Amino acid sequence: MTVFIGVDAGGTSTRAVLVDGAGRCLGYGTAGGGNPVSWGPAQAADAIGAAIQRAADGARRDGLLEADTGPGVAVLAMAGANAMLSPESMIGDLHGIGRIGRVDIASDLLATFCSGTPARSGYVLVAGTGSAALRVDDGQIAASADGLGWLIGDAGSGFWIGCRVVRSALAALDGYGPPTALAALLGSELGLPGGGDRTPLGRLSAVESAVDMIYQMRPVELARFASLAFRAAGVAETAPTGDISADADPVAATILTQARERLLCTLGAVWAAGHPGPVVVGGSIAQRLPGLAVAITAAAAARGEAAPAITAVPDGVIGAAVLAMRAAGIEVDAVVFDRLTGSLAEHR
Amino acid sequence: MTVFIGVDAGGTSTRAVLVDGAGRCLGYGTAGGGNPVSWGPAQAADAIGAAIQRAADGARRDGLLEADTGPGVAVLAMAGANAMLSPESMIGDLHGIGRIGRVDIASDLLATFCSGTPARSGYVLVAGTGSAALRVDDGQIAASADGLGWLIGDAGSGFWIGCRVVRSALAALDGYGPPTALAALLGSELGLPGGGDRTPLGRLSAVESAVDMIYQMRPVELARFASLAFRAAGVAETAPTGDISADADPVAATILTQARERLLCTLGAVWAAGHPGPVVVGGSIAQRLPGLAVAITAAAAARGEAAPAITAVPDGVIGAAVLAMRAAGIEVDAVVFDRLTGSLAEHR
Repeated sequence: MTVFIGVDAGGTSTRAVLVDGAGRCLGYGTAGGGNPVSWGPAQAADAIGAAIQRAADGARRDGLLEADTGPGVAVLAMAGANAMLSPESMIGDLHGIGRIGRVDIASDLLATFCSGTPARSGYVLVAGTGSAALRVDDGQIAASADGLGWLIGDAGSGFWIGCRVVRSALAALDGYGPPTALAALLGSELGLPGGGDRTPLGRLSAVESAVDMIYQMRPVELARFASLAFRAAGVAETAPTGDISADADPVAATILTQARERLLCTLGAVWAAGHPGPVVVGGSIAQRLPGLAVAITAAAAARGEAAPAITAVPDGVIGAAVLAMRAAGIEVDAVVFDRLTGSLAEHR
Repeated sequence: MTVFIGVDAGGTSTRAVLVDGAGRCLGYGTAGGGNPVSWGPAQAADAIGAAIQRAADGARRDGLLEADTGPGVAVLAMAGANAMLSPESMIGDLHGIGRIGRVDIASDLLATFCSGTPARSGYVLVAGTGSAALRVDDGQIAASADGLGWLIGDAGSGFWIGCRVVRSALAALDGYGPPTALAALLGSELGLPGGGDRTPLGRLSAVESAVDMIYQMRPVELARFASLAFRAAGVAETAPTGDISADADPVAATILTQARERLLCTLGAVWAAGHPGPVVVGGSIAQRLPGLAVAITAAAAARGEAAPAITAVPDGVIGAAVLAMRAAGIEVDAVVFDRLTGSLAEHR
């Protein structure tokens, strides 16, 4: 038996899966943020090791981990870390899991693509805290767009939406922007003082408190306020159907509509004629954004192309396992892929 | 003879003026950034001391500084520092300038208002690196709007424009935004590699270099790129007349038009019926933004009000001197005010 390890090391959480050579999930585990850019190499390595250990503990409990294993492959999917680290330094002690002959680091975007399809060519559009798109050609990255970070890129991402939520809410509270339901939502999210208390400069005390609190955060943490836009626009927690409701808060609806337009532009930047998809959509924002799949289909039609197959996935952990198996020369076709996704679903 | 000192301690430069009790300018000096929030109290105090010293050196050279002076007042105008510091700690050693009986810290916005008018009531709209507006009533701040900082406020400011300049330029270079003249301007501003070299991920090397450079900066430094929007829109260096030209780069024109709309909203938030102005407009952005005065007048007309008097000023140094004289009980009427502005103009 040979064990393959797929790890998706994200900014807020890390997921690890152990699979055998036929694509059967042996165990699954999670841990905290494992991206070395955000958390530093040591803390990232700890999170990655913990997620793998939990996956192995589960596999051992279920009697699925054999003592003597052949040399497998581990793939760590992460953003922007390719040049920073030795892959081996990130994976720590794998005692008790089996022999791992090779550890690769892969693009988290490519892993997200491989989480949604066994196809070797297509597109992936990711919007979580950040946002970016890839064109994938024969398993390799052929083009990329955005992913330029919170300050100057990541259009339509969780940070992008969350920053606009806070700006709009404070502009409403401070009187220089239109009224919006986001103001009350931000107030209860931050526990701002109610009432109409004002500072000596005539400013609402709630605005002053919010500003003090928010500048204590790391800027990228504004991504957490993206959820308020979905709430103010009445978008369900689960994957949405249809468009943003007509009676949604107009400010929140505009933010989400513009985010969708920006993400379409990002996907459009990597689109190539005669390269029809599938399109994998990943990340917490892209999954929840109403009408994104409809808009992608409409954009294809506007280019005179057939509607691409569109799949939404939560993360890149399956794709990391797919990449690990492929690195060992195993063909991951539709049958193996379906076995992988089906058996992982039982462990999540 | 009594000497009054007005200091405008800004984020990028500090200006100091020495005046006598009749409003005659005795000397003027400048130094680097003197805002303690941006630079720390020690460096800010050094800059403030240096600007005052240069003003005093000039006054002494011109034979205008008498050895024996009465107890004057110094006013330090600065943003957001009111609660942080003891005024005395900011002004250092004033040996050789005369006796200063009192040092006050004042709002930089209020000082900007007082730089533009001897009136005791009206409005001030400032857009430099940041942006904010005040309503002033009988010399006191009656209402304020925005000034919430680069991350979540300062709509229409230099940071706001500069951030959009960089975002738009990089989106164009990376293919996910419309083409714009800002891309080439950013390229030459940062010395980006030309040609079409691409990274292994298919990204232009120029984009990669720009991202690396910009994340090395403090975020607020993006304000420096605001000038590229003015250049791409063909706006003259000096105070503009008329609107943005019809053949301006559309992306840059949209950024500047939206900045103007945001600044109008900020001024609108402090506007009160029956409180007609004047309006003082200050800061490098507000001074250069085409059509701002016309838009302010149109907004007043839309509210059924008379056109307010609108004055543009570069900074708050005159106002700081006005506040210092008023703190000593001196009435600064139109005659004194005109003497102050006229005699300072000879020293700048």
